[in-house]
Amino acid sequence: MRILVDMDGVLADFETAFLENWLAQHPEKSFVPIEDRQTFYIDEEYPAEFKPYLYKIFTAQYYYRNLKPIAGGREALHEMEKLGLEVIICTSPLSDYKYCVPEKYEWVEEHLGRDWVKKIVLTRDKTLVKGDFLIDDKPEISGRDTPEWEHVLYDQPYNRRVSSRKRLTWSNWQVVLL
Amino acid sequence: MRILVDMDGVLADFETAFLENWLAQHPEKSFVPIEDRQTFYIDEEYPAEFKPYLYKIFTAQYYYRNLKPIAGGREALHEMEKLGLEVIICTSPLSDYKYCVPEKYEWVEEHLGRDWVKKIVLTRDKTLVKGDFLIDDKPEISGRDTPEWEHVLYDQPYNRRVSSRKRLTWSNWQVVLL
Repeated sequence: MRILVDMDGVLADFETAFLENWLAQHPEKSFVPIEDRQTFYIDEEYPAEFKPYLYKIFTAQYYYRNLKPIAGGREALHEMEKLGLEVIICTSPLSDYKYCVPEKYEWVEEHLGRDWVKKIVLTRDKTLVKGDFLIDDKPEISGRDTPEWEHVLYDQPYNRRVSSRKRLTWSNWQVVLL
Repeated sequence: MRILVDMDGVLADFETAFLENWLAQHPEKSFVPIEDRQTFYIDEEYPAEFKPYLYKIFTAQYYYRNLKPIAGGREALHEMEKLGLEVIICTSPLSDYKYCVPEKYEWVEEHLGRDWVKKIVLTRDKTLVKGDFLIDDKPEISGRDTPEWEHVLYDQPYNRRVSSRKRLTWSNWQVVLL
């Protein structure tokens, strides 16, 4: 069994880092608390005129590298390997790849270890990657091909409207997948 | 039909850049002319004590970014798309990813165009990627899975001992693949 595991919103805490940066850089502006987030793309929940400020935050140097790990993720991946499951880190970089792409590698090396760097697949189209499950927080994942994997949602406030898929967190993944 | 296309030795001229750097940095040492190269990994053809010098060359900043395009590659990819074929750039970064990984993205943007950056799949294991053909100069490609694609060799001096596969260059790819 091969499990593809997304990074942002699954292993790396994009939402908290974004909000912390937003509050620090724009304390006078409105914000959306994490529990109230309704859509996958943050820019859909903020006024259109804020867009350049949002982008500036997550395209900045060290943004990706400094994301905090989501609790239990590292332990879950190590547990999967102990159980003999194959694990692949399957993640889509920003179009603005300059910092995001190398920092995703640095993040994996720092938080999971050097061996895990070899397990990264960086792709904008996850339907091209073969696996049994894809654990991903994005509500809908499409691409060129019919995916081989079953998409299991990593539970996040912004994907709770989707009721058609299995969902899990790192505290119950074994119950859902095994 | 989806064609996965490797970068080094297929689209980007790794061999010429390596040799130019080698001759410039170590003019007093022996070297292997490109036409005499016999094995895929350069370090297998140089004395063991040269290894650190070899690695220094291709792990250096700007090495990947400055690779020259292999003649006809860009035109072939554009022609494939015109013919309605799907093209994916499928490339394996060095373990020493610091410069290699972002520079592969920069290279694609510079030589193929911004749209092509979205078509990059970075993976150490190409058997996980779905496609009909993989055009690659590496003699043997293995991984976790049984590949879906047929491996077609991009002809290079160091892979000429392999006789079991179709081989092509950018001047005859249509005859071989279509």
